[in-house]
Amino acid sequence: MADERYDRGWERLRELAGEQGERVIEGVRDVSPDLARYVVEFGYGDVYSRAALDDRTRQLAAIAALTALGGAEPQLEYHIGIALNVGVEPQEIVETIVHLAPFLGFARTLNAARSAKRVFAARDVLPR
Amino acid sequence: MADERYDRGWERLRELAGEQGERVIEGVRDVSPDLARYVVEFGYGDVYSRAALDDRTRQLAAIAALTALGGAEPQLEYHIGIALNVGVEPQEIVETIVHLAPFLGFARTLNAARSAKRVFAARDVLPR
Amino acid sequence: MADERYDRGWERLRELAGEQGERVIEGVRDVSPDLARYVVEFGYGDVYSRAALDDRTRQLAAIAALTALGGAEPQLEYHIGIALNVGVEPQEIVETIVHLAPFLGFARTLNAARSAKRVFAARDVLPR
Amino acid sequence: MADERYDRGWERLRELAGEQGERVIEGVRDVSPDLARYVVEFGYGDVYSRAALDDRTRQLAAIAALTALGGAEPQLEYHIGIALNVGVEPQEIVETIVHLAPFLGFARTLNAARSAKRVFAARDVLPR
Amino acid sequence: MADERYDRGWERLRELAGEQGERVIEGVRDVSPDLARYVVEFGYGDVYSRAALDDRTRQLAAIAALTALGGAEPQLEYHIGIALNVGVEPQEIVETIVHLAPFLGFARTLNAARSAKRVFAARDVLPR
Amino acid sequence: MADERYDRGWERLRELAGEQGERVIEGVRDVSPDLARYVVEFGYGDVYSRAALDDRTRQLAAIAALTALGGAEPQLEYHIGIALNVGVEPQEIVETIVHLAPFLGFARTLNAARSAKRVFAARDVLPR
Repeated sequence: MADERYDRGWERLRELAGEQGERVIEGVRDVSPDLARYVVEFGYGDVYSRAALDDRTRQLAAIAALTALGGAEPQLEYHIGIALNVGVEPQEIVETIVHLAPFLGFARTLNAARSAKRVFAARDVLPR
Repeated sequence: MADERYDRGWERLRELAGEQGERVIEGVRDVSPDLARYVVEFGYGDVYSRAALDDRTRQLAAIAALTALGGAEPQLEYHIGIALNVGVEPQEIVETIVHLAPFLGFARTLNAARSAKRVFAARDVLPR
Repeated sequence: MADERYDRGWERLRELAGEQGERVIEGVRDVSPDLARYVVEFGYGDVYSRAALDDRTRQLAAIAALTALGGAEPQLEYHIGIALNVGVEPQEIVETIVHLAPFLGFARTLNAARSAKRVFAARDVLPR
Repeated sequence: MADERYDRGWERLRELAGEQGERVIEGVRDVSPDLARYVVEFGYGDVYSRAALDDRTRQLAAIAALTALGGAEPQLEYHIGIALNVGVEPQEIVETIVHLAPFLGFARTLNAARSAKRVFAARDVLPR
Repeated sequence: MADERYDRGWERLRELAGEQGERVIEGVRDVSPDLARYVVEFGYGDVYSRAALDDRTRQLAAIAALTALGGAEPQLEYHIGIALNVGVEPQEIVETIVHLAPFLGFARTLNAARSAKRVFAARDVLPR
Repeated sequence: MADERYDRGWERLRELAGEQGERVIEGVRDVSPDLARYVVEFGYGDVYSRAALDDRTRQLAAIAALTALGGAEPQLEYHIGIALNVGVEPQEIVETIVHLAPFLGFARTLNAARSAKRVFAARDVLPR
């Protein structure tokens, strides 16, 4: 059953993030196989497998939280990439960051906009 | 024209937050009329008046960002209230907070869940 | 097996935090039964059940992290209480906070010292 | 000589914060006499005794840092009080907070404005 | 009139940050023309155009806030550069960072000192 | 006597961090000799010279606090290195980070795990 959670999580991770997702988990497994396993089981097998939110809402919430957190550029860029994978439009990602400017100010939101720009450039997609 | 931004913002604020919104602005005006004006003009007149995101997405993104920020309970509870005002279901608010648990951990998300509980109790609404 | 994780977590929670721990979980369950379940399963069933660290080290690490996080006084005081429950001396808790003063500065560490003082007063224990 | 630093710090603390400063230190001393001593020696005896910045600049920098930090309302309000003690005008304190709105956003700056309002009300001073 | 705010902001930005300021705005414009516009209008046209604080105080407050925020090195170094542009002495910048060490601890203040060192080296200026 | 604190701190720093510790201090001294001195005197001469905690506990608390703080990778990696120097097992460092996952979430703890991985690789040590 623990295996069930892991398998469901691994499938969900692959569906969302493909090979990039696998590489992230491999990178953690080198230093902590259990932390890697918890990410798959809890992060993807439990939480990302909940039926209640659609993937677009999930990803915009994740982008909002990581923008606010700061100092989490690798995660922010990874989840901007997943957002694109699940069909969120680049412009929606940008709008979410713009929406947070009055809440969080320009220091955090300009950094997030730069992260979005890097991901968009690597994917060769453009907002609007 | 500055007045146009203010008027548009004030109308938007009233539409979203009603009298509670007005009271928040009044409370700031006592100490800084200009900061109160910027909240109305920039926060509501410029950003909350953008056409690109629906109000449900805006509020879930705001809740996600304020959950991550921490130490912002008054704002978090105010924006959970606005979410309810614009028709977001209590359960969607809770799901957004649950979705963030793997990203942010239980310290921030349990605090946000308690904030949601306080707002739901004051409004006599229940998740699910 | 999911039940196994829950049961192991619940037992661990009760062992560490007693009735206060149960009340924290009940309080979350009102607003999100699943978030409450994840805290028990992941927090206590998976992580707090790992064999590798002794409870003293766990609690001092938790206190250090929550001191640094800020805006997490309920969690900090709860985990200071657990530290006392598992036999950490009040003075060790205080020393851990003092040790962090050069890293985090006095704003965060004075707040943590006040949290410790509140818990010690409620338990009628004294450092030194 | 350690005593010299302590004495210089204590005098500086009293000059800046008067009896309120003494009470803060007493409150910490109950739980950690050494942390209280470090605040006096390092915070006031070393750093607040440097000749290079005038007290107005010191206090506005402290207010800016504590506004950004978040979750540090006791310290923020204490240092707003010291700012008033050393002759900073209420309006300068408010202006510093307003200046930070584009950097930090309205969540942190509205909380800081409310802290300023509380201190001004307790002192019966008004901006402008 | 919106244009008036933009024009005033653009002029202020150029006065403070010269071509480097323009490049920052261009870099944001690629991904979000509106976010770039808000920085100019709200950040520089509204707030940086207020009469109440002198530029030295503004920049030291910005440096203090960005030091405390953490994870904002690009903004911190940019605003250290503006501080030099408006005539703040390198030593005053360093003193402001040193002043914050008791508040924020050495983790944030050593990072800020390194940012200052990088800007000073790039400009070939030295504290004291 | 001030010299006594400095000398004791410098010796302690060398004992814990060797030449790498000296280089960190030299790097700060270039921009602020006094900030460098305070790190040695207060950080190492006062706090790291306290008898009450063993070095293993100190370092795990420091790693926990820096993991939670975020945006402090240079300090985190430096203190992971000191942990290894004083005989903490790589696996204990990893366990401490894993222990914090439920508190802080995966964004902060995966970044810390990557920092640990970098230090372990540079030292050619492996967890487990």
